[in-house]
Amino acid sequence: MTGWILVPWSYNRDNAPEGLAVEVYDGEGEPSVDLSEVVFYVVPYARPAAMRLLARMPHVRVVQVLTAGYETVLPLLPETADLYNGRGLHDASTAEHAVALMLAAQRELPRWGADQERHVWQPHFTRSLADSRVLIVGYGSIGAAIEARLRPFEVEVLRLARRPRPEAGVHGIDELHSLLPAADIVVIATPQTPQTQALVGGPELRLLPDDALVVNVGRGPVLDTGALLEQRGRVRAALDVTDPEPLPADHPLWQAPGVLITPHIAGGSATFYPRARRFVDAQLRRWVAGEPLVNRVTP
Amino acid sequence: MTGWILVPWSYNRDNAPEGLAVEVYDGEGEPSVDLSEVVFYVVPYARPAAMRLLARMPHVRVVQVLTAGYETVLPLLPETADLYNGRGLHDASTAEHAVALMLAAQRELPRWGADQERHVWQPHFTRSLADSRVLIVGYGSIGAAIEARLRPFEVEVLRLARRPRPEAGVHGIDELHSLLPAADIVVIATPQTPQTQALVGGPELRLLPDDALVVNVGRGPVLDTGALLEQRGRVRAALDVTDPEPLPADHPLWQAPGVLITPHIAGGSATFYPRARRFVDAQLRRWVAGEPLVNRVTP
Repeated sequence: MTGWILVPWSYNRDNAPEGLAVEVYDGEGEPSVDLSEVVFYVVPYARPAAMRLLARMPHVRVVQVLTAGYETVLPLLPETADLYNGRGLHDASTAEHAVALMLAAQRELPRWGADQERHVWQPHFTRSLADSRVLIVGYGSIGAAIEARLRPFEVEVLRLARRPRPEAGVHGIDELHSLLPAADIVVIATPQTPQTQALVGGPELRLLPDDALVVNVGRGPVLDTGALLEQRGRVRAALDVTDPEPLPADHPLWQAPGVLITPHIAGGSATFYPRARRFVDAQLRRWVAGEPLVNRVTP
Repeated sequence: MTGWILVPWSYNRDNAPEGLAVEVYDGEGEPSVDLSEVVFYVVPYARPAAMRLLARMPHVRVVQVLTAGYETVLPLLPETADLYNGRGLHDASTAEHAVALMLAAQRELPRWGADQERHVWQPHFTRSLADSRVLIVGYGSIGAAIEARLRPFEVEVLRLARRPRPEAGVHGIDELHSLLPAADIVVIATPQTPQTQALVGGPELRLLPDDALVVNVGRGPVLDTGALLEQRGRVRAALDVTDPEPLPADHPLWQAPGVLITPHIAGGSATFYPRARRFVDAQLRRWVAGEPLVNRVTP
């Protein structure tokens, strides 16, 4: 418990447990403490250079990243340290954006935005989210957070994950094709793995009813871009992630009919930092109390 | 119970209780039955001419409108009839749109839409709905439906109605000024009455913190348009109703900074008709069973 703790934001020492030596390092430039004395390192978010400091931390015992993914840290991890990830910290932000995309597409917000640009007041009936059947593809913590937010909207939710969990009403991936024809909205919330690559491609899109909506807040390559373009608007899409990403200026997806795009901003909203702080505070309390920390990803 | 029942949509007679003489009248042209024999009239939605038929229905006993408001029907109501309104039928649609507007404004969907137009991929951190304090002004059935949908989004909800109901955590209108400084988002869901006219005006907007969002799904004149324009973007707005309405093409509100406009489409989405049909079916079952109908607005 002796040694420095590096956190990426100003820390309220009044709340800090006794004897905790906390210093701020936001990922820019050089930390103000001797790195060989750092025992607990909260790696600044979205600052790739901050990871390279690990090579100069021979006594670090806890490396805490704030992302869910950690492939890039593993090769840099000192032998003395366990690695902890930020699983769950982006769920609220991502799930909220998934619902925002669904609502925007169903209630035609892009159309009203274009009308506003032209100063045109021309109401018409739109689709609704209510009464839709929503298939959540990828039922991890983000999928569950999406469902929690959808529940009061008077929708029917179908859940699909790699492995079926009948006791929790979760269908297995084998049932994807049989569920698609009944889905009004499909939300992709899976990580990118060899198994999820182009999981939603031509055959899957063709199984969807006319005017169905595909929302992607998972990873771009889970949805086959070429196959989506071939639908020519028969199936709509609201995408926070794309393949390729970033989407080049001359890519046809930008103006494909019925396609709404946001630039991979689902997980990164104001909601993230307070959650990350609370999470790190709780990790520090566990550390001081000698309790096991949560979200450990090293064995 | 003898006599014709006029409903505005094709009716599944297989589901109709025995002995019910149901005919369809969608509000266009002349009904196919003798109006003097009509006892139960479901007035077609958004067809003003359909109300004038009441003058030719001397034996009508039930007049069912599908809107919540009914001021325009009252003067035309035959003495033989009781009037029933459509309170609640638009709640799901309106509440869903209120949340859509909040999410669109917080997650900057208009900005991403403009970027998509220009084929620009330029992510940045946005506000979130999570962690916001949302003040619902007007806590009737729509206000409650908005709250139900907001609850899983990790927000704090404050409720305000004409009369305080401390047991239900509902503040009275007198507390508006004391609550505004703590609100990140204000949702207006009140009807238009002399008391709610310009309820949110200059003094109220000035009490809001910088960057607060005002959402209006109630009635345009409840929010003072001039006072909103004077904020020059300090307070943002997402408006489904405006004053004046429809908004003339040369009105400055169209391009006011931080203002998002949809043309009074909150209540009118695909979600309305199934709910209206179920409601009318239930009213007909009550009628056949000799039970009192619900939503009566005449004494």
